[in-house]
Amino acid sequence: MPSANASRKSQEKPREIMDAAEDYAKERYGICSMIQSQEKPDRVLVWVKDLTVQKADEVVWVRGRVHTSRAKGKQCFLVLRQQQFNVQALVAVGDHASKQMVKFAANINKESIVDVEGVVRKVNQKIGSCTQQDVELHVQKIYVISLAEPRLPLQLDDAIRPEIEGEEEGRATVNQDTRLDNRVIDLRTSTSQAVFRLQSGICHLFRETLINKGFVEIQTPKIISAASEGGANVFTVSYFKNNAYLAQSPQLYKQMCICADFEKVFCIGPVFRAEDSNTHRHLTEFVGLDIEMAFNYHYHEVMEEIADTLVQIFKGLQERFQTEIQMVNKQFPCEPFKFLEPTLRLEYCEALAMLREAGVEMGDEDDLSTPNEKLLGRLVKEKYDTDFYILDKYPLAVRPFYTMPDPRNPKQSNSYDMFMRGEEILSGAQRIHDPQLLTERALHHGIDLEKIKAYIDSFRFGAPPHAGGGIVFTGVDNGMNQGLQQPGGQPNAATEIYLASHPGDRGLRHRPVPAKSTSLPHINGK
Amino acid sequence: MPSANASRKSQEKPREIMDAAEDYAKERYGICSMIQSQEKPDRVLVWVKDLTVQKADEVVWVRGRVHTSRAKGKQCFLVLRQQQFNVQALVAVGDHASKQMVKFAANINKESIVDVEGVVRKVNQKIGSCTQQDVELHVQKIYVISLAEPRLPLQLDDAIRPEIEGEEEGRATVNQDTRLDNRVIDLRTSTSQAVFRLQSGICHLFRETLINKGFVEIQTPKIISAASEGGANVFTVSYFKNNAYLAQSPQLYKQMCICADFEKVFCIGPVFRAEDSNTHRHLTEFVGLDIEMAFNYHYHEVMEEIADTLVQIFKGLQERFQTEIQMVNKQFPCEPFKFLEPTLRLEYCEALAMLREAGVEMGDEDDLSTPNEKLLGRLVKEKYDTDFYILDKYPLAVRPFYTMPDPRNPKQSNSYDMFMRGEEILSGAQRIHDPQLLTERALHHGIDLEKIKAYIDSFRFGAPPHAGGGIVFTGVDNGMNQGLQQPGGQPNAATEIYLASHPGDRGLRHRPVPAKSTSLPHINGK
Repeated sequence: MPSANASRKSQEKPREIMDAAEDYAKERYGICSMIQSQEKPDRVLVWVKDLTVQKADEVVWVRGRVHTSRAKGKQCFLVLRQQQFNVQALVAVGDHASKQMVKFAANINKESIVDVEGVVRKVNQKIGSCTQQDVELHVQKIYVISLAEPRLPLQLDDAIRPEIEGEEEGRATVNQDTRLDNRVIDLRTSTSQAVFRLQSGICHLFRETLINKGFVEIQTPKIISAASEGGANVFTVSYFKNNAYLAQSPQLYKQMCICADFEKVFCIGPVFRAEDSNTHRHLTEFVGLDIEMAFNYHYHEVMEEIADTLVQIFKGLQERFQTEIQMVNKQFPCEPFKFLEPTLRLEYCEALAMLREAGVEMGDEDDLSTPNEKLLGRLVKEKYDTDFYILDKYPLAVRPFYTMPDPRNPKQSNSYDMFMRGEEILSGAQRIHDPQLLTERALHHGIDLEKIKAYIDSFRFGAPPHAGGGIVFTGVDNGMNQGLQQPGGQPNAATEIYLASHPGDRGLRHRPVPAKSTSLPHINGK
Repeated sequence: MPSANASRKSQEKPREIMDAAEDYAKERYGICSMIQSQEKPDRVLVWVKDLTVQKADEVVWVRGRVHTSRAKGKQCFLVLRQQQFNVQALVAVGDHASKQMVKFAANINKESIVDVEGVVRKVNQKIGSCTQQDVELHVQKIYVISLAEPRLPLQLDDAIRPEIEGEEEGRATVNQDTRLDNRVIDLRTSTSQAVFRLQSGICHLFRETLINKGFVEIQTPKIISAASEGGANVFTVSYFKNNAYLAQSPQLYKQMCICADFEKVFCIGPVFRAEDSNTHRHLTEFVGLDIEMAFNYHYHEVMEEIADTLVQIFKGLQERFQTEIQMVNKQFPCEPFKFLEPTLRLEYCEALAMLREAGVEMGDEDDLSTPNEKLLGRLVKEKYDTDFYILDKYPLAVRPFYTMPDPRNPKQSNSYDMFMRGEEILSGAQRIHDPQLLTERALHHGIDLEKIKAYIDSFRFGAPPHAGGGIVFTGVDNGMNQGLQQPGGQPNAATEIYLASHPGDRGLRHRPVPAKSTSLPHINGK
């Protein structure tokens, strides 16, 4: 155990605390030397979330952050926080604590990490401000393990306050710039803790479902030798004395794996697009969840497999992540997310008819604008009571060159998007697996055949019919955007961790908002 | 069902086949039109691997590639392949097949994909050349679904021949350039199919184990605003009007997540290093498996958790992937992989003593060279009978600035590497969580503090002691290296899918070999 009082730093009033010959508790508190793995004490640390009445009257050790502290006469009340859980701790002058010890506890900077020995006591009145409402900890020893600087750039309680409460009651909230400049602190809030755990859960459910369906996970290259997907929106990398490019998607590689007989593949990885526009649907870097699958006779075999995968994610979140969902909902209230089984499938022409009936003027081969997507989401919800649906049979004109045309209607294609709460979250299609038709379609799109030669060649030695799709999972704030948007501003590495959240949120390119109610469409109850 | 004989292309002898008025079987074979999802037939396709004596005398439909075909009088023997499985199919003149149909079957280009209807027949003598040894398929209908070009750039049977067999018996093998220039075909071999499935399995076992241990999966940014890990070996990206950089590791971000109270995090993702040297341990792009974890009092808590994770992967592979392991071993025979539980831990000074005893001259603070690593691997195997061990307590001088010094010996550090068959596969350490010491160590290493300000700042508001490690999982041949190594040569996008294999192989940077015996250390039996 690191020795107490062997302080590398000093608290605000060190003299007063240290100079205490008469302090009968002086061994019971202090600032530990830095933990450098000198010893392996057999002390067991109990998790804050496990402090319940079952542990009443036990003496336990707990490690937590000082979330708040409040001195009151001969007592000091601390709230100790561990991840999204917290408990009240009481240091009171008595057998175990001296008045110096109470003062020491009251002066510990917020967010410092402390080891506390205490007795778990049942309380008569529930402690509404803590997750552990039925007990408090009566502190016998308290040592600072890692001391925080005195001035915090943001208050965690402000950071989890719903915006509406801030506006209506004039209470402080934290703006996006402050959050992102102090991401390490912002991520400590119960909301961020829950959002990140939900994200981790979504990745896990995605893979678990696909592995159970017989998919193989692949890794695809990110630095590539040619801007093979057209050349627009591609980042250039200085590669020793040459240039290379960042992959705009794993599209070509997952198709190559299908041509190599892997039958069903998926990957999770970063995708790079040099999109210089300021919307939450145009990201320079995001994490994509990608699927590709051979089928027997009809691309609906694949489309239905993808839709089922999403449904399994929705269900898995509801079953395994209720705590996290409720934590996010406290800050970002939203309507329960609804979906049907099997998933509703509408054809593009049906959607057009619904929009036209609602007064929208659109041509048969026009793509959906973002406002029309949202309107359509509302119309579908009214008519079918679902927040999740498939839109099938897009006009060929609005899809990439490798999309399989519909043989019965040359203006249509065998392609689909999937929507959550009126936002497209997945785009997919049957791909052309015939090198001759692929060449024709590439020429029609004005693509330089030389640049996609290897791609087309991969279909020359027998290729199974196949389809797939890609989900934009999380936006990454790589800290670049601020610097570029604000001339003279410095990109801030502290903002470089950012995960917008999950399918349904395409993230925000320019200093993204952590989690808005509109961007948490699916993690709610059914 | 796509109509037969409605060919978009023609076989070598179309006239002869088509011009057959007297052909009583003419509806039973042909080249299908491209599958464009016109229909949803209710035909069930049976998997080749499910063709066993249990299905004897059943009529089934199978989709597979023509692996080989051999005409013999009025019969044609085909081997139909599906992924790593294959079955013999017989087309014989009789009630179902005309001589024209036999000729058609015999002329189908290898690697073409066909749909075959046939009766499963038990055979009297095992078919040694197929995975389905006890049955063959008596073909009644055969349609080409996707026609391969007539000339294959490589033969699959050559591509799975062990090198030694090629050398000793003068039989053809396939060189690395040909493999990588025709990656889609090379990946169809039973060996590649197995290697990719093992890789997918390793990722799955890694995540499954960590999620069960309470870890949270994170995604970290790849385009970053500053070359924050020192500046050497960093790729520069043109970011609109500015420059950005590719992340050399997720190190900083996973540590930030620990400072943000996630306690235990992991990530799987690409790592970029501008290393211009031609060895299989210097890669410009690879996939890393990364772990970071807070601990209570000693970094061995983390080190043991990581070692156990690797042991769980070894065991999971042995339990769930025996078929794949045996398939790889056919081409790349190797000794069974041995490991101990708990994992053997040696200190650096013990390793030095063993090496010195074997005649190696090394200073106390010298790093291990690759030959010495290998020698040590052999010495450890002899003495302890294990292929997997931890080397703990590296000299401080050979580790990065953020490594925690050993407080009891200023020349040592709280750091470790893990080895498989004498190659380092993981490097890890306790990290410095105190901003003051971190600043001192960075200055000692001559690092520009301004560039790592955000990193150091993330420890200012209370940071738990923590440790972690990173595994180089797979090398990615992104097709760049060839073009750069051979002046005038063109980077070849067809080589852009490459996954070296799994932990224990750091991949090869310059046109990597798919899987050498030395690079498959751990997938063998215990």
